[in-house]
Amino acid sequence: MDERWDKLPGTEIEILQSREVFSFGLDAVLLAHFPRVPKSGKIVDLCSGNGAVGLMLSALTTGKLALVELQPRLSEMAARSVSRNGLATRVTPLTLDLKDAPAVLGANSQDLVVCNPPYFKVENQSQLKQSEYHQLARHELTTDFETICKSAQTLLKGQGHFALIHRPARFFELTETLLAHHLVPKRIRFVYPKMGAAANLVLIDAIKDGHAGGEIFEPPLVIYQENGAYTDDVQEIYFGKT
Amino acid sequence: MDERWDKLPGTEIEILQSREVFSFGLDAVLLAHFPRVPKSGKIVDLCSGNGAVGLMLSALTTGKLALVELQPRLSEMAARSVSRNGLATRVTPLTLDLKDAPAVLGANSQDLVVCNPPYFKVENQSQLKQSEYHQLARHELTTDFETICKSAQTLLKGQGHFALIHRPARFFELTETLLAHHLVPKRIRFVYPKMGAAANLVLIDAIKDGHAGGEIFEPPLVIYQENGAYTDDVQEIYFGKT
Repeated sequence: MDERWDKLPGTEIEILQSREVFSFGLDAVLLAHFPRVPKSGKIVDLCSGNGAVGLMLSALTTGKLALVELQPRLSEMAARSVSRNGLATRVTPLTLDLKDAPAVLGANSQDLVVCNPPYFKVENQSQLKQSEYHQLARHELTTDFETICKSAQTLLKGQGHFALIHRPARFFELTETLLAHHLVPKRIRFVYPKMGAAANLVLIDAIKDGHAGGEIFEPPLVIYQENGAYTDDVQEIYFGKT
Repeated sequence: MDERWDKLPGTEIEILQSREVFSFGLDAVLLAHFPRVPKSGKIVDLCSGNGAVGLMLSALTTGKLALVELQPRLSEMAARSVSRNGLATRVTPLTLDLKDAPAVLGANSQDLVVCNPPYFKVENQSQLKQSEYHQLARHELTTDFETICKSAQTLLKGQGHFALIHRPARFFELTETLLAHHLVPKRIRFVYPKMGAAANLVLIDAIKDGHAGGEIFEPPLVIYQENGAYTDDVQEIYFGKT
């Protein structure tokens, strides 16, 4: 077992990690810092993995968080992190298929749903060379974006927010699926590995039953400087304003 | 009459301008430098104004260009610019409603359609305080995006490109309308007035009958540096690589 305790960026929260099973990445950090987090109320993290996004969000709200994760091994890691940080009264890891989350958590119950989903469609099983844990985290083997949108739509209160991170190469499929579920993308931020490169991630904030039009494309988020160091924007996300 | 002859950026081409009637802006320059311009073949500029975009494109191809403009005064200015630059064998200004362009130019005949359309919907006639020339250039009084897409779709050959510039606040309406006309957005570039500001323009390159998926969001195009000077990217567009 290669388990270790890491600090979550910008917090005093410790998280149990395992290279073999799952470690959170930059995309989790970017997602956790993207939504406008309600000071109280209810938040769900769909595809919560070892709980990184939900635990980071817990530092920004006094509200309740549910972490929905299908893989028992990851959910159990999240539970140990919740316990170690004394967050058990507010943060609840659930080992659950996200399609069943509304039945467990209640329809029209949530103020914010966040999701760092598997990015890749499964087009060729032979592409799947990674460990099973990593396969499920990266490929749409056990869920897909349509199912995620259906759950988010049902979970959210009217005008609740659904914040997600995904790949720009699927942008129009994503926005079409969101809109088909009355989740209206309102605030979009593209993430670029460096200046002069095409976007490789996109953050989307959609509002349940929002009005169409007036969408905002926020300032580009560039990750690395020319010299390979993080840009000021990313430093600020990781370490707070200096 | 406040007419004057100006140079088009990055070219030796002179263009007739008039503050009272129409002068091209930064958006025309950005649009002209966005598409991959076929070395030969046929190009149409819909909403061509005084011909700025078409004249800039004429420097990048040996092909033929049609400039489609509804307002006779602007079309006539374009004609004088075409003549002054000896481009009459290749560049043809037409005083024409763009919905009639396919009937005049032929269906499935064009390799590239470009458009710098009126950006604003007319929601309140009393907003219209400008001169009639500027009203027609900025507001959807005589055409709308749906009509533009219909014309572009009919004009283009299969796999032909439709390149346009527009406002990000209408992004999803634009892409939905494009897709409804089988014009598949493939290459998108957001334009930001400065670092840290939301996008205020977007460039879209759509392919007639293109395949869905794999869309590319190109590097952000930032216009001004902190000190108010153009960024290197814009300098390069205006004056070429240094």
